[in-house]
Amino acid sequence: MEMPQAVRWGADRRSVLLIDQRALPERFVEMELTTIEDACDAIRTLAVRGAPAIGIAAAMAFAVEMRQVVDRDANARRAYAAHIAAALRETRPTAVNLFCAIDRMLTVAHGPCSGAALREALECEATAILEEDRAMCRRIGEHALSLFPTDARVATHCNAGALATGGMGTALAGVYLAAERGDRIKVFVDETRPMLQGSRLTTWELGRAGVDVVLIADAAAASVMRRGEIDLCIVGADRVAANGDVANKIGTYSLAVAAHHHQIPFYVAAPTSTIDATMSSGHDIPIEQRAAEELRCVAGTRTAPSDVPVYNPAFDVTPAALITAIVSDRGVHRPPFDFRAP
Amino acid sequence: MEMPQAVRWGADRRSVLLIDQRALPERFVEMELTTIEDACDAIRTLAVRGAPAIGIAAAMAFAVEMRQVVDRDANARRAYAAHIAAALRETRPTAVNLFCAIDRMLTVAHGPCSGAALREALECEATAILEEDRAMCRRIGEHALSLFPTDARVATHCNAGALATGGMGTALAGVYLAAERGDRIKVFVDETRPMLQGSRLTTWELGRAGVDVVLIADAAAASVMRRGEIDLCIVGADRVAANGDVANKIGTYSLAVAAHHHQIPFYVAAPTSTIDATMSSGHDIPIEQRAAEELRCVAGTRTAPSDVPVYNPAFDVTPAALITAIVSDRGVHRPPFDFRAP
Repeated sequence: MEMPQAVRWGADRRSVLLIDQRALPERFVEMELTTIEDACDAIRTLAVRGAPAIGIAAAMAFAVEMRQVVDRDANARRAYAAHIAAALRETRPTAVNLFCAIDRMLTVAHGPCSGAALREALECEATAILEEDRAMCRRIGEHALSLFPTDARVATHCNAGALATGGMGTALAGVYLAAERGDRIKVFVDETRPMLQGSRLTTWELGRAGVDVVLIADAAAASVMRRGEIDLCIVGADRVAANGDVANKIGTYSLAVAAHHHQIPFYVAAPTSTIDATMSSGHDIPIEQRAAEELRCVAGTRTAPSDVPVYNPAFDVTPAALITAIVSDRGVHRPPFDFRAP
Repeated sequence: MEMPQAVRWGADRRSVLLIDQRALPERFVEMELTTIEDACDAIRTLAVRGAPAIGIAAAMAFAVEMRQVVDRDANARRAYAAHIAAALRETRPTAVNLFCAIDRMLTVAHGPCSGAALREALECEATAILEEDRAMCRRIGEHALSLFPTDARVATHCNAGALATGGMGTALAGVYLAAERGDRIKVFVDETRPMLQGSRLTTWELGRAGVDVVLIADAAAASVMRRGEIDLCIVGADRVAANGDVANKIGTYSLAVAAHHHQIPFYVAAPTSTIDATMSSGHDIPIEQRAAEELRCVAGTRTAPSDVPVYNPAFDVTPAALITAIVSDRGVHRPPFDFRAP
């Protein structure tokens, strides 16, 4: 099972290697980041995307850049760490994983060590962030797999796969584990307008791993369900409210409504860190509006009048009532959802 | 109310003028067809599209081309008419309106007149096909308007507008009439992947007529419904079965499922000629599969792996149970549907 590694260490941990997701699916290119400026550019321009992958890339780049100052005095190290943290935070100001990763790296940077010991401590922390994410993906996958029939026919939306994480993804983790155990699993992939993450990324990573994929237009999913060709849906989540409402890529709600109409299970795969106990319901989740040009143009070609009004939300909210179960690293949560520790 | 005229006569009825729909929305270009080869090319390459508009263009081009032979003997005229008919039929072998229009023109061509009388008879018949379509659109619009609340907020899919017909369209006819009576009507337009007829054509023609439009991704429609921003859906139809099942552009079913979930009326606008009494239900309607490249590329740019399997049906079937009413030129048909003349 060949799975892409979205982010990894370069030789001697002197650099960070990223799959440049802007070049996919046309070209598979690994970028080498050797400075914090490289890393900020890569995050800002979406060469790396997916909240966990961004956090991991930032942590590794932090460790690489700190090599410059590990032998200097505590004040100089602290000032440089603050500069790195500020530069990274500016790239994607709403990315929770990014901020968590930076805080963890700062805690290590502010510790008593210096020199090689500090360098190694920083590398260890960044590696830990990667490894924890990898383990979390696998746990989500194992819980998800317990819900899959043999040789499941799955529908998914956007990309919540290996390219978005340090491991085998969230929504796609169960798919990879099913393939690993020898299932003939088949995945219908929504192209996911406007940014086409399904077309560009999900079909690429699943196809590379030898999983049967079929690319469909977003609005064709309901029709495929009606033909009886889908056993279950599984998608990722950007944020889960305390009542189980889920914010995820625009189009997720449409898929959930169609699944409900056809009595097909609709699963959401999400790390526990995505569950936001401060949001009592999906009504509280702010929905980012994206540029009108994303819908007026496709891949640089104008496809609509240049002045046409556009409604282009990044996310939609799927109410808990349409969700069969939420699969986290802690297990399978069923409605009525209660994510508080027992 | 400025409405585009998809097909019209050139000067002295010596040519046919078409809006080149391949150039929209970037450029508004009228093509002048002076030969039957021009017309066949235009139909084949989708410069003109929409079943009624194709039939009208074919009839006019038939009349123009027949000018070459109106002064020759009956055998020569008959042979030339057969040649024209064969060339036109080959362009879109499944287009019912095209075949009807050709048959009507052949009947006139085979009549007793010759010379100027025949030329005029052919021009009259082609004009009649156009005018009948225009009147039919208006009747559909009047019946549709009776279903619209004041200042309706409408969702539509694909293009069943002026660009597809000789008149004000089918699904959009009620919208134009609402605007004409002074309503502040608002239309949410699905972009309609893969061919983007909503983005390219519907937003263009409605915007040009001064109607408020909002372009959305196909998979965002359900989300807009949930926000309470849509009062009704209205779409066209490629074919209606005797039980009221409707075949229309892929994605229509998805919109109907979402409308049903949100208890929003879902209307289909279709000329009586679209109702196919020989099909007892939608199960009998053959679904054309289109090229995989339509989904692997967008506007010429590759957006998915070049070998990814694709399911790309041209149409889907919306079962009668999800349709609030079918609006034809004869009136508003409600379930249980019975289209037989009383």
